[in-house]
Amino acid sequence: MSHPSQASGGTAVISGTETADIRFPTSRFLDGSDAMNPDPDYSAATVILSTTQPGLEGHGLAFTLGRGTDLVVAAIEALLPTVTGRSLDGIENDMAGFWRSLVGESQMRWLGPEKGVTHMATAAIVNAVWDLLAKRAGKPLWRYLADMPPEQIVRAIDFRHISDALPPELALEILQRNLPDKPARIARLAAEGHAAYTTSAGWLGYPDEKIRALASAAVADGWNAIKMKVGASLADDLRRCAVLREVLGPDRLLMIDANQVWEVDQAIGWVKALQPFDPYWIEEPVSPDDILGHARIRNAVSPVRVATGEHCHNRIMFKQFLQAGSIDVAQIDACRLGGVNEVLAVLLLAAAFDTPVCPHAGGVGLCEYVQHLSFFDAACVAAGPEGRMIEHAGHLHEHFVDPIRIHNGRYLAPQLPGFSVEMKAESRTAYAFPNGSAWKDHA
Amino acid sequence: MSHPSQASGGTAVISGTETADIRFPTSRFLDGSDAMNPDPDYSAATVILSTTQPGLEGHGLAFTLGRGTDLVVAAIEALLPTVTGRSLDGIENDMAGFWRSLVGESQMRWLGPEKGVTHMATAAIVNAVWDLLAKRAGKPLWRYLADMPPEQIVRAIDFRHISDALPPELALEILQRNLPDKPARIARLAAEGHAAYTTSAGWLGYPDEKIRALASAAVADGWNAIKMKVGASLADDLRRCAVLREVLGPDRLLMIDANQVWEVDQAIGWVKALQPFDPYWIEEPVSPDDILGHARIRNAVSPVRVATGEHCHNRIMFKQFLQAGSIDVAQIDACRLGGVNEVLAVLLLAAAFDTPVCPHAGGVGLCEYVQHLSFFDAACVAAGPEGRMIEHAGHLHEHFVDPIRIHNGRYLAPQLPGFSVEMKAESRTAYAFPNGSAWKDHA
Repeated sequence: MSHPSQASGGTAVISGTETADIRFPTSRFLDGSDAMNPDPDYSAATVILSTTQPGLEGHGLAFTLGRGTDLVVAAIEALLPTVTGRSLDGIENDMAGFWRSLVGESQMRWLGPEKGVTHMATAAIVNAVWDLLAKRAGKPLWRYLADMPPEQIVRAIDFRHISDALPPELALEILQRNLPDKPARIARLAAEGHAAYTTSAGWLGYPDEKIRALASAAVADGWNAIKMKVGASLADDLRRCAVLREVLGPDRLLMIDANQVWEVDQAIGWVKALQPFDPYWIEEPVSPDDILGHARIRNAVSPVRVATGEHCHNRIMFKQFLQAGSIDVAQIDACRLGGVNEVLAVLLLAAAFDTPVCPHAGGVGLCEYVQHLSFFDAACVAAGPEGRMIEHAGHLHEHFVDPIRIHNGRYLAPQLPGFSVEMKAESRTAYAFPNGSAWKDHA
Repeated sequence: MSHPSQASGGTAVISGTETADIRFPTSRFLDGSDAMNPDPDYSAATVILSTTQPGLEGHGLAFTLGRGTDLVVAAIEALLPTVTGRSLDGIENDMAGFWRSLVGESQMRWLGPEKGVTHMATAAIVNAVWDLLAKRAGKPLWRYLADMPPEQIVRAIDFRHISDALPPELALEILQRNLPDKPARIARLAAEGHAAYTTSAGWLGYPDEKIRALASAAVADGWNAIKMKVGASLADDLRRCAVLREVLGPDRLLMIDANQVWEVDQAIGWVKALQPFDPYWIEEPVSPDDILGHARIRNAVSPVRVATGEHCHNRIMFKQFLQAGSIDVAQIDACRLGGVNEVLAVLLLAAAFDTPVCPHAGGVGLCEYVQHLSFFDAACVAAGPEGRMIEHAGHLHEHFVDPIRIHNGRYLAPQLPGFSVEMKAESRTAYAFPNGSAWKDHA
C-alpha cells in the first residue's frame, strides 16, 4: 500500500456498530409524489461504524420510502458480522474482496442475489466503510477516489459477471487515458462546481400554480434544467408541460419522469404526444427490469433520450442496458447499487459505452451521496462534461452535518472529509421511527 | 362468481396469521452444496393464515438457505396487514387486484420492486392464500386451477409490464386452444403422473463414489434423467461427468448446473469441454440477471440447451429471456416469483414462446409446491409433454403433511386439497430457529 493516508490511519479496526430506522413524514405534504409512489415518507436505514481510532466514525445509509425501512435495518444488522473486527488497512488493501464478502455471504446471497433489501443493506455498510476510509485520509470521498492510482481503483471493482463488457484492462485504460487531464479537471470542478438539474418543482401531487411558482423561482435561481413527473393523466401532463415549457423558455431543458407506470407501447405513444414540448429525456417509462422494452422505446421516441437507473439493481443490469442500446443516460443510485465499489464498475461501464451518468438523487441523503460520485466521474472517468448532470431536490438537507451546497444551479465541490451522509444527532433522535418526537406526536 | 366451490366457502375471512423461521441443518452433511452455495441450511420463512371458517387454514412458505430467513419472516409480517381481514370471496373475485395490492404496497415497493426479500415474502403469502382457496374448494391446487374457466385464470394475472409479449387476449387464446384436450390430459396425469429428473445424486460436495452409488440407485429406481453440479474445477467435472454418463448409459439424460459461477466466455469454453458427455442442458451458467449473456451462450453451445430461472425474480425478466432467445428451458421457482399469480403469467409467456417449463425444486417444500404448477401446466397451458420435467431431490419430504409421491422416476398427481406445503407441527417445533431442539442441541 502506497497511499499517503496510510500513515495517519495506522491499525484502526471496526469495533462498534449502530443502526437506526429514520423516517421523515414527507407524505403529509406530497413532496416526492409521483405516478408510482403516491405517498412516500422519505426514510433511511442508517449505520454508523465506530473504530478503535478515537473519533473516527463511518456513516452510511440506504434510502427508503417509509414502511419496510426496518427490513433494511435488519438486513444491515445481519450483514454487520462480516465487517466487525476488520482493520481498515486490510479492507483498503482488498476492496473488491471486501465487497464480495458482503454480496457473496454464502447463505444470504440466496435472498438476492445482489438485489432488493439485502443489496440496499450492503450499500449502506459499504458506503459507511468508504466514508471511514475517506475521513481517515482527511479528504472528501470524491478526492479520496480521484487521488487513487488507476490500478487501485480497478482493484476495488468486482468484475464478476461483467468482464465480457468491461474487462479489467479496459477499465484501467479508461482511467489512464484521463490521467493527463486529471489535475485540470479537479481544479475546474473545485472552481466551478458540477452541472445539475432540479426536480423540486414538478411533483405529481402539486397543483399547476405551485409548479409555475416553483419553476419560476428555480429559473430565477439559475437552474437551466427542470424535471417533472408524468404518467397519471395525459391531459394533465400536456397542460403541465405547457406551463413548464413557458416558464423555461425554448433553451432550458425539460425532463419528464414516468416512474415505471407505462406499458412499452403506451410509453411510446405518450412520449410522442408530449414531444411538442421538447422533452430532453423520458425517465423510467416502464419496468426498471425491462432492458429490451427500453431499447424499443428509445428507438421509437428518438430524439427524446431515454433515461433509467434509480431502480437498476446491479452492474449486470446496467451492463445489459448499455449492451442493448436501451439508454442514453445512466442514472445510478448510490444505495440501490451495492455502494461505491459497484458504482465504480457502472461509471466505467458507462464510459466504455460512451454514455453519460446522471445520478438519481433527492429523497434523503441521496444528493449528499451522489455529488461525490459525479465529481469523481468528472475528474477521472467520463470523457467530458457533455450531458452529465446531478439531480437535485431541495428537501431535508438541513438534517445533515455536511449538506450539499448549490450555487446558480450547480453543485459546489464537497470539501469536508468523508461521504457527507452523516445525519445530525438531533435529527436522528427526532425522526427515529416509531419513537422520535416527529412520529410520537402524530400517533 | 360461478365457481362451484363458492357455496361451501361462504363468507370466510382471513382472521389470524402465524409466521415462523424454520431451518434444517443440512450444511452438516453437504446436501445441497454447489459451486455458489457451499453450505446451505435449507430453510423456510413460513406463514399460516387462519380464517373465520373453522379448520380452514392456508399454508405458505418461501424457501431460503439459512441466515436471513428472519428477514423474509419480517417482510411477511410487514405485508400481512394487506391481507388480514379480507374475505376469500373478495380475493377470489379479484385475484390480480389482490396480487397487485401486495407487490404495489406504496412504500414497500421501493425495496424491490418485485424482487429480493420482499418479493419472496409476497410469494409465501400469495401461495398461502391459494392454498386456502384450493382447500375451501376441496381440491389439490392443480385441479382447482385446471377447473377454472380460462377467463378466470386470465383474471388472476397482472399483465403489467408484460402486455407487449403476452396481451390478455393471447393468454386466453392459449388456454382456450387446450380446452378440448383438457379432460384427456387430466385423466392421463392422474393415471401416469408427470415426468421428472433427480438432482439428489450430484451435489458438488459429494465424493465420486457416493455419486456413482447414488446415481446407480437412481437408475435402478427408474430415473431417466439426472442433474449434477459443475463449475468448481474442470478436471473434477470431466471425471464426474464420465462417471455419471457411464452409469446413465447413452440414452438417459445428464443435465449440468453451474449455479452462476462463470463469466460468459468462460461458460462457453467449459460447456464445450463437457460436450463429449452429451449434456442435455447447462443450467445457470452465469448471473441469473444476464439475459444477453445467456443468449450469447445459447448460441455458442447449441445443441446443449440453456436453462435458467430459479433466481429469475419476476415475469418481466422471464419475458426478456424468452424475447431474446436466451433459454431453451424456463425454470420457474414457486416462491422466487411472487407466488401462483405470477407463475401463471410465466407459464403462459413460456407457452407463447413455445418454451418448456421445468420448475426448480429441491430445497425444502419446493417439490411439494411445484408439482401442482407442472400438473396444471400439463393440463391447461403447455402444447404437449415435450421436454417438461419436474426437478426432484430426496431431502426433507418427511416434514410435510402431504409429501410428494414418486414412482418409477415420475411424480404422482397430488390428491389432497391445497398446495401441499403444510409442515408437520412437530417439525415446525423441532426446527424452529434458534430455539427448536435441532438448533439448541448444537449451540
